[in-house]
Formats: sequence, C-alpha cells, structure tokens
Amino acid sequence: MSDVPDIETVRKLSQQYSNWGRWGDDDEIGTLNHLTPERRVEAAKLVRNGRVVAMGLPLDETGPQSGGFGRFNPIHLMIRDGADAVAGTTIRDFYGGKDGYLRGTDDILILPLQCGTQWDALSHIIFEGHIYNGVNADMVSSKGALRNDITGGCDQMVGRGVLLDVPAAKGLPWLEPGTAITGEDLEECELRQGLTVGPGDMVFVRTGQMAQVRDQGSWGDYSGGSAPGIGLEAVPWVAEREVAALATDTWGMEVRPNQTPDVNQPLHIVFIVHMGLWVGEIFDLEPLSAACAEEGRWEFLFTGPPLPVTRAVGSPLTPLAVF
Amino acid sequence: MSDVPDIETVRKLSQQYSNWGRWGDDDEIGTLNHLTPERRVEAAKLVRNGRVVAMGLPLDETGPQSGGFGRFNPIHLMIRDGADAVAGTTIRDFYGGKDGYLRGTDDILILPLQCGTQWDALSHIIFEGHIYNGVNADMVSSKGALRNDITGGCDQMVGRGVLLDVPAAKGLPWLEPGTAITGEDLEECELRQGLTVGPGDMVFVRTGQMAQVRDQGSWGDYSGGSAPGIGLEAVPWVAEREVAALATDTWGMEVRPNQTPDVNQPLHIVFIVHMGLWVGEIFDLEPLSAACAEEGRWEFLFTGPPLPVTRAVGSPLTPLAVF
Amino acid sequence: MSDVPDIETVRKLSQQYSNWGRWGDDDEIGTLNHLTPERRVEAAKLVRNGRVVAMGLPLDETGPQSGGFGRFNPIHLMIRDGADAVAGTTIRDFYGGKDGYLRGTDDILILPLQCGTQWDALSHIIFEGHIYNGVNADMVSSKGALRNDITGGCDQMVGRGVLLDVPAAKGLPWLEPGTAITGEDLEECELRQGLTVGPGDMVFVRTGQMAQVRDQGSWGDYSGGSAPGIGLEAVPWVAEREVAALATDTWGMEVRPNQTPDVNQPLHIVFIVHMGLWVGEIFDLEPLSAACAEEGRWEFLFTGPPLPVTRAVGSPLTPLAVF
Amino acid sequence: MSDVPDIETVRKLSQQYSNWGRWGDDDEIGTLNHLTPERRVEAAKLVRNGRVVAMGLPLDETGPQSGGFGRFNPIHLMIRDGADAVAGTTIRDFYGGKDGYLRGTDDILILPLQCGTQWDALSHIIFEGHIYNGVNADMVSSKGALRNDITGGCDQMVGRGVLLDVPAAKGLPWLEPGTAITGEDLEECELRQGLTVGPGDMVFVRTGQMAQVRDQGSWGDYSGGSAPGIGLEAVPWVAEREVAALATDTWGMEVRPNQTPDVNQPLHIVFIVHMGLWVGEIFDLEPLSAACAEEGRWEFLFTGPPLPVTRAVGSPLTPLAVF
Repeated sequence: MSDVPDIETVRKLSQQYSNWGRWGDDDEIGTLNHLTPERRVEAAKLVRNGRVVAMGLPLDETGPQSGGFGRFNPIHLMIRDGADAVAGTTIRDFYGGKDGYLRGTDDILILPLQCGTQWDALSHIIFEGHIYNGVNADMVSSKGALRNDITGGCDQMVGRGVLLDVPAAKGLPWLEPGTAITGEDLEECELRQGLTVGPGDMVFVRTGQMAQVRDQGSWGDYSGGSAPGIGLEAVPWVAEREVAALATDTWGMEVRPNQTPDVNQPLHIVFIVHMGLWVGEIFDLEPLSAACAEEGRWEFLFTGPPLPVTRAVGSPLTPLAVF
Repeated sequence: MSDVPDIETVRKLSQQYSNWGRWGDDDEIGTLNHLTPERRVEAAKLVRNGRVVAMGLPLDETGPQSGGFGRFNPIHLMIRDGADAVAGTTIRDFYGGKDGYLRGTDDILILPLQCGTQWDALSHIIFEGHIYNGVNADMVSSKGALRNDITGGCDQMVGRGVLLDVPAAKGLPWLEPGTAITGEDLEECELRQGLTVGPGDMVFVRTGQMAQVRDQGSWGDYSGGSAPGIGLEAVPWVAEREVAALATDTWGMEVRPNQTPDVNQPLHIVFIVHMGLWVGEIFDLEPLSAACAEEGRWEFLFTGPPLPVTRAVGSPLTPLAVF
Repeated sequence: MSDVPDIETVRKLSQQYSNWGRWGDDDEIGTLNHLTPERRVEAAKLVRNGRVVAMGLPLDETGPQSGGFGRFNPIHLMIRDGADAVAGTTIRDFYGGKDGYLRGTDDILILPLQCGTQWDALSHIIFEGHIYNGVNADMVSSKGALRNDITGGCDQMVGRGVLLDVPAAKGLPWLEPGTAITGEDLEECELRQGLTVGPGDMVFVRTGQMAQVRDQGSWGDYSGGSAPGIGLEAVPWVAEREVAALATDTWGMEVRPNQTPDVNQPLHIVFIVHMGLWVGEIFDLEPLSAACAEEGRWEFLFTGPPLPVTRAVGSPLTPLAVF
Repeated sequence: MSDVPDIETVRKLSQQYSNWGRWGDDDEIGTLNHLTPERRVEAAKLVRNGRVVAMGLPLDETGPQSGGFGRFNPIHLMIRDGADAVAGTTIRDFYGGKDGYLRGTDDILILPLQCGTQWDALSHIIFEGHIYNGVNADMVSSKGALRNDITGGCDQMVGRGVLLDVPAAKGLPWLEPGTAITGEDLEECELRQGLTVGPGDMVFVRTGQMAQVRDQGSWGDYSGGSAPGIGLEAVPWVAEREVAALATDTWGMEVRPNQTPDVNQPLHIVFIVHMGLWVGEIFDLEPLSAACAEEGRWEFLFTGPPLPVTRAVGSPLTPLAVF
C-alpha cells in the first residue's frame, strides 16, 4: 500500500481479495457461502440462557436521516384505527355498514430501504460498470436489481455472531470520528474477548458512535459526516477470516473521511463489489455491548435476515443476538 | 356452546380464556410471556443439521392483495440505480459532480403492514372499546398504537416452532374453503407427527390453501374470501397448550365464512383481544411442509421477529425454520 | 372584543359571521357561493394583455416543511426514465422484451396535501365537534372527509383575483413576524391600489414573508413559527366584503403568535368552520407583486382549482393570475 | 405513406413536422409557444355566461389503473382526522397536550403522475436517444427530468379550448375500439360545430370511450387495451393548425392497436418528441360534451396547468372549461 492510498490501492485490494467466480458464475450470495449448515449447528450451541438482545433502531421519525441521497426517516400512517372505532365510523367506512362487533386497525409504511438498521444487498454498489461477481451494472435498473438482490440473504442469516467491541478494548467510551479500525485493532478485541473470529461468522464491530450521538443529544452529521469505521488496513483480516457478514454502528461502515482522497467509500468497493461481503450499517450495538459485558462472552447465535423484497438493493431487519 | 355460535359464544370464550391482567396490567406482549428464556435454550437444541427454510412470501407486485381495507401489494421504487451509472448520470445527480469511482444504488418501499406474511400486533383488533389487556381503543389513533404496538415482539420471536400439517394428516393436498380446524384435528396432527405442542411453542398450522391457489394459477379470492382455517372448536386447545404464537397460510387465520353469523372474525376477538395471542397470517408453509416431511420431524428452531416500526399494528417479517 | 381576545371572542365572531345554513343545509362550498357565473364573466374582462403569473411554489425537496404534524416536502421518484433507455434496459424491463422503438418515462409523487401552496378544504378544521355548516366531526375519519371535501372547489375556482400588497402600501419590504393585518390595513391597500374588493373576489394578501425568508437564505421557522398575517380585527372586512377565498404567502394565513392566548389559530375557526371561507396558504406572491406593480393594476382573472382528490381535506394547486 | 405504416413512416412524419430548434435550442415548452398572450386575450372573450365544466376524473381508488408500467390508482391517507377529534386523541397526539380548542385534519396522497387525467411532459417520451428539441435521453434520470419537465407548462395553460366531438358528428354514442380518427374526421367536427381550430388552441378530441366503459360498468382494458384514438392520418391537421395542446378521453391518445405493427405508440413519437406537442390523456369529456351541446358552442376559455412538480414527466390537473 502506498503512503496515501488511492484508486490503485483499491483496485489492487479488489483484485487480491476478489471472490468473483469463487462460488460459481451464478452465485448471488457471496460471503454467505461461508456460513455452512454445519456452522449453524455449532452456532446454535451458543444458546445457553435464552437471553435475546435486539440491535435494530426504531423505524420512526427519530431516525438519523437528514435527506442525503433522497433518504428520509420512515413515514408511518394509519389506514384505520381505534379513534375511528371510538368515534363510531369504522363500520360505516370499512365494513360496508354491517356491524360484526369486531373493529380492525391497519397501517402503512413508506421507507427508504437504506434509512435505518440495514443490510446492503450485493447490488448496492457499482464499480467500473459491475456489481458483485462481474454482473453488469445494467442488471440494476429502475425496475430494481435483477441480479444480486437482497432476497439471496433471506434464508441464510442464522449463524454465529461475534461482537468486537473496539472502544471497550481500548478503554474508551467511543472512537472519535476519523479513527480507522485496523486488523490489529480487531485482533486486540479477539484477544481481550477470548475468542477468534472464523469462517462464516457474522461480525459486529462497535465504534461507539451511537453512544456519542446520544451523549451529544442529537444525530448531528451521523448520516454522511465524519465517523470512526473500518480502515483499509483491516481488509486482509476481514478477507482471511472468511466472515459471512460485517456490520457496524455507523452510517457508512468504513472510516470517514475516507482514507483515499480520490475514491469515495473504498471499502464498499472492495467488500461489496469484489468480495461479495454482506455489509450492515446503523446497527445499535449499545445494548449488545452491555449484554456481552454482563454475560462475559462476545459470541452468540445471530439471526437477522433481510425482508424478501424482490429486486431490492437493501433491507431493514430486526437483528437479534441470542445468548 | 350453542348450536349456532354467536356473540354470546364469543363473549363467553373471551372471558373464559382471557389473559387480561395475567402478566400485569402493563403487559403488552401477551402470550409471548409463555416463551421463556429456558424454552429458547431447549429450542436451540433442535438445530441439528443447519437447514434453513423461509416462510415469507416475496414482497412484490405478485402478492395476494386486491384492495380490501385499502391494502395493496408492496410498491418498490429505485432512488438511484445501475442504469444511471451506465448512462453516466449518477455523479451529476447524486454526488455533486465529484467522481469518486463508486456509484451506489438506493431504493424505497411503500407497503401496508398487513399486505403479506405478517404478525398482527395486539393493537390490531378492537372489541367493545378495548384492545388486549383492557387498554382503551383510543390508545390507537391516527398517530398509531401508543400501547400494544408491534415492537413488543421484536426481542422475543426466537423459540420452538412446530408445523401442524393438517391436510397431510388427512391425506389431502389441501383443506377446502370453509373447513373449520378443530382441537381434534390439531391433536391428530400431533399424533401423526409424534410430538406434543406445549407452552411457548410457535405453531404454524398448514391448511394448504396456498397450494390450492397455486394449483388454480391465481390468488382468486384468497384475500377476504372463503378459506379453511381455525375453528371456534380449537380455542381450548390453543389456550390450554399455552402457545406463544399461531400462524397460518391463509389471509385471515380463522375459517371463513365465519362460524358466527353475527360476529366478524370471532377468533380475532378471542385470540388477539382477550388472550393476547400473537397471530400470523399469509405464511407460505409449502416449502416448510416439504422440508418437514423430508426431515421426518415437524419441530425446529423458529426465528421471525417483526420490524421495530414504532406504533405499528402489524409488521412484515422473514420467518425462518432452522433444522 | 375584550382587551385580550380569547375563546369568547372567537365564539362571538363565529356566531356573528356564521354562514351555516345560509346556502342550505347541504351546502359544502361555503363562500364560493359568492362567486357567481355573472362575476366570472366580469372577471374574464380583466384579461387585457394575456400575461400569466403563477403563484405556486415548486413541489420538491426545497419546500418549507420541517416535519410538524407529520408534514414533509414532496417526494418525487421515477418509475422508469431516460437512463434506462440509454442503458438499454427499458425494453427488457417495461415492454416485455418487444422493442417498438418508443421508450417512455413515468414518475410518482408522495406528498402531504398541506405541504406547499394549497387550499384548505372546509373539512380541514374542527371546532367544538363540527366542521363547516354544522356537520359532525365524525364525517372526517380515517377514510377521509365524507362531507366538505376539497372537490367542492374544483369547478368553482375561476373569478376575479385581487392582490392586496400590504407591505407595499406601507413602503416596507415585508411585514415583521407578529404583525397583525387589520381591516384598516386592507382598506389602505384598496385605496392605494385604486380598487374595492367585493363579493366573489378571491383575495391574495401579501405579507412579504416569502421575500424575507429568501433574503435570509433559509426557511427558518416559516413553517409554524412567528409570522405576520391576518388579525382578528380583519374579520368584519373579510365577512362583509363577501370574498370567495382568501390566501396569503405565509404558512398559516393568520398572525402568529396568535392573538388569543387560549385559542390556537382562531381565524381558522371563524373563517373555515363558521364562515365556510376558502383559505389558501404558502402562495408565492412575490412574482405577482412585481407584475401588479408593472401592470399598474392589482386585479386579474384568477384560476386555481384544487385537484379532485376524493375525500381530501386540502390540495396543492397551480394558481394563476391572468392580466 | 406506405400501405402499412412503419418506422419509416414515423421517421418521415417526425422529420417533416419537427419543431426542434423552431423556438430556439433552449426551448422547453414546444407547441405552447403557439399560445401567445394575444390569443389568451381573445380566449377570455369566450366567457359569456360563466358556466364552468371540469374535465378531471376523481383522483381515487375508482380510477382506471390496473398496474401496467407500475401505475396504480391514487392512495389517499389521513395524517389526523375528525375521528381523532371525536375520540379525544388529537390534543394528546398532535398538539403536545395543550388544548387550544382547534383541531385540524391533514392528509397525504401517493400517486403515479400518469395515473389519471394528466398532461404528458415533453420528457415523457424518448425516441432514438432523444427527447423534444434534441435533448439527450440522459437528461431524464432517476433524479427526474433535468430538461423539458412538466413545470414549463405551469404559467401557460390558459387559452382557447375547443371540443371536437367526433362520435356526436357521426351520430354515434362512441367510437369503437380500433377506430382511427383522421384529419377529415376532425374537419367534419369543425364543420358541424361551426368553428375552425387555429394556432394556440387547446383541442379536446372526444372518442366517447369513457361513455362506453361507463355503459359496460367497468374499466375493462381501458388502460392499455384497444381504444379509438388519433390516427397517423391526422398528423398534418394537428401540425398545420398549430394547436398548443391535444387531449383525449382515452388512456393513450392515439388509436390502439397501433397502426404501425413495428412501432409502439407512433404518435407519441411524432407529437411529443418531434413536434413538442402537449398531450393530455384520460380527460373526462362527457360532461363537456353535454355542456357544449346545451350551450350550442364548442369553444370556451380553457384553464388547466400542471402542478409545478420539479423534474416531473407528467402531472395531474384540474382542467376547466369556462363558457
């Protein structure tokens, strides 16, 4: 790696760690291939006391979006509700005037699929005309992703989860914006936590940024601004451990400002386009951090499939850690 | 029960099997209280080969909705896509003219929360002015459900799942519309399948209606029309087994036309309002039915939390069976 | 009127100027009854040089909304577009693979009907259980407005328009927030502009607030904050002139903070609920102000019907002044 | 024209009647240039009795859409409503607990801009890589139309309107699907109606198809199926009369099945892409037809601007005829 990484660094890492063709030319699930049924069986053995910790932000108007890329916080509206029942209008309006005692309520949600706790699909990023596995960019049109859509992950996302709590390992409440997490940092976490990340694991890297924004009482520029995150130096670790998925508590997973002055979100290129890595963002890892400390272990059964939204390039989810 | 069940039958069953106050006046999760951490530990032991089967319908324009109650099939739209990248417009339109090599894609979803595979929240049904646990109907207004919303289930929905394959037990491809499933039918399934449903189980009752609509090549009146489903005769079984959740492969869980000429969806009243039972609908149980037959067992680790949509009265999900 | 106006002031004005029953118990268009066909004929004679000035804000992400009452700026998305055509995906995705040379583009809009330049329907405000003409509030449910919806105005909104340019009459660039416009202020405008407002006129009262927010380079608290606007003192003028509609360049038409410490938006009660007055908000009157000054006249043919959105309580529009 | 028209016919007509460059290379309003201020003054003189007739279909669930191209009927939802007021929840939910007597209602609309009575923007159709005036197709991306969007028509759409009632001229209730309207048919209408269409007119051609679907009690395949409509033979008439806009009561303006076996919607190419003609569709001309017959005249002041939706490729409107 040159002193200042640039597009050539990105191309080199992409080539070096590319998984294109590794699981066949038709493969659409990338690193989820590491998550074998056998590894799921091992992961299930981690359930020892049945404690469940959720890592999803509430999907509502309090979310972090401020409009960038046309993303907004979820909009929730009622189609019919209890006030209608109290006011006596439900039967007139929704049951054709026939009162059968019951009154139902219904609702609707409008949301950008990248607005909160989310998986990126392998069609979420394009680099030099291609998405994962060498598929042409024109397979993702106004109609959505005809290849590599989010649904490939639906029946896969159950396995061993590992929290790597970077600020905890360093005795900090959170990492400051701009801090790049390296492979050594991740190994430091493994050592402190007494575990080793391996093939098929779903890894959750805590930066503590969500603690920081709560401490400051506002999202600030959480969405798109400076942030701690994975650095280019961590690529070999991520690739060689053969993790199935990687998620952070930040907007963009990787450190910002980006380490490459000329390349926007370089790790999205290396990880998503070339490695076929499932990347998660905006996970709330604060309760999980507390629970792991209490339990004295940082591994658990993880479950968190995307919604089966046909042709989607991302999805909200309800990620769960089961101890 | 009188010869023809009516509102008095519903009131009596509601009273007899009411769980109001059982888990405290502030309880908002009802029968999920049966799903204890200990039972989750036992459930995890069912993971023996790591096979995963998903039970969610695709969220797209092929769904079953035809407009009733203002419900429609999900609408998916792209905010930016690969065609923009190919046409060379992404940098101009979404990156302020600065080319950093990467191009992203984003999308949006508009969906009624009751449009496909779903959990009903305990605020989805109102009966005589109240929702579950005696909460007044005015707690569900145009603002959504201030009590008993769907988020209560988010960190709960991991446990033992059991498929009760009713048509298979009867040697039929599917039950005909109008067929009421009784407690005896469910016991017949248990006997054939060599298991007993117990406290905290999440039970999936297959009627085969989804096989039927596929056989006929159209949803027909799947949404709101005649259907096989749970009958009033099954209430004692459901209540006494202390199941945590109950889902079917039909639009409305219970048999239609309803057994009570004067009461619309009587089991929704008994189950959701009074028992606080988590009810699932429009689950695709066909692949699960095949998998259970192949595996020779009808129990598995189930995971399928709702999305954490604040104040929602229902939610889509990605239900998974892990063998 | 007491020294400090309060709910009794509002009740008294409401009673004094009530139009309930004036045009029949079934009337749903209120003051638009003043706009007779004969007055339309007279208004058309005002078209002397064919100049057209539009008064609608662009419907896009630059609008004034900041989330209050769940209102947001319009969201515009493409269903299919030219980038698809350039990328060569249109035929595959939207024409079933059959190339007939043509490629179309389509789009979608999501908008709160109160988000920009708008008419309030006579069902937009409820006071003491009723909307205009004594209709019970339960006629406006989750299903929308079964009475007094916006569609009543669709085939009416063509008539004489008059701009009353209050800051111009006072030699000011704009009125400061909190300035209440009185009947005398409006008469001062009439005098300066050499016209008299009369029955059936559609009156546009400029406060200049839109010039102010442009001058400051941000909407600030335009939406819901302090603002100049119509004062309670103007009620007799508005009622006695028998105007058909009244619109301003502010978020809420009336002066804010409200003159009544105990009553929120008192003029909405008097005007919309009791007078049945059509109220317009967030009209961009800056170009119109300049045009009127250039033309040396402040009257014109106005056209600006709402969209025929069934059961809507408001509507965007494209208001036009034709000179 | 060859016996069977084809792509060469379309190219020839496009070239022959092209308006590219006619009003400057930057022109974005095409044939609206024919609608001069002077012609507006003349049009206003047509207002003689003040009768107003609206031509817009209701924007609601009863519309003609059945899903083609991802178009659906408008979805209208309440944000807050009168049932909330009756149930007593409004102050709690929307006014922060402070009761200021007033209760408001708000609503939201989700609609494809091509779902009902609409203008097509000059960016709605692409032919051989270009939209109107030779603009490259890449100016219409996922961000919308950066050129030739619908807003160009906002301050223009006031002028002389003419109804050409083709079935009435032929003594028919409606034209049968597949009937192509020729220039001679339009001249027959002019003769019968005692008027001549000229520069800047906004022409409404009635086929009666809306009467037919009402007679049959269902939209049937109104949206995208066979229909009467303008034929290729009418191109010279439309071009030479220099009309400013042309609208029909059908889904697609031109006759279907198309007269060109190899070209889809050939008139959209000739009219929109090359002539820059403003095309309107799904206008309800039945009330207008009746009114014109009663009034004994088929000309009127027309007003019907699109909404100012930035970058939109179409827009709903409330078209009005004023007699």
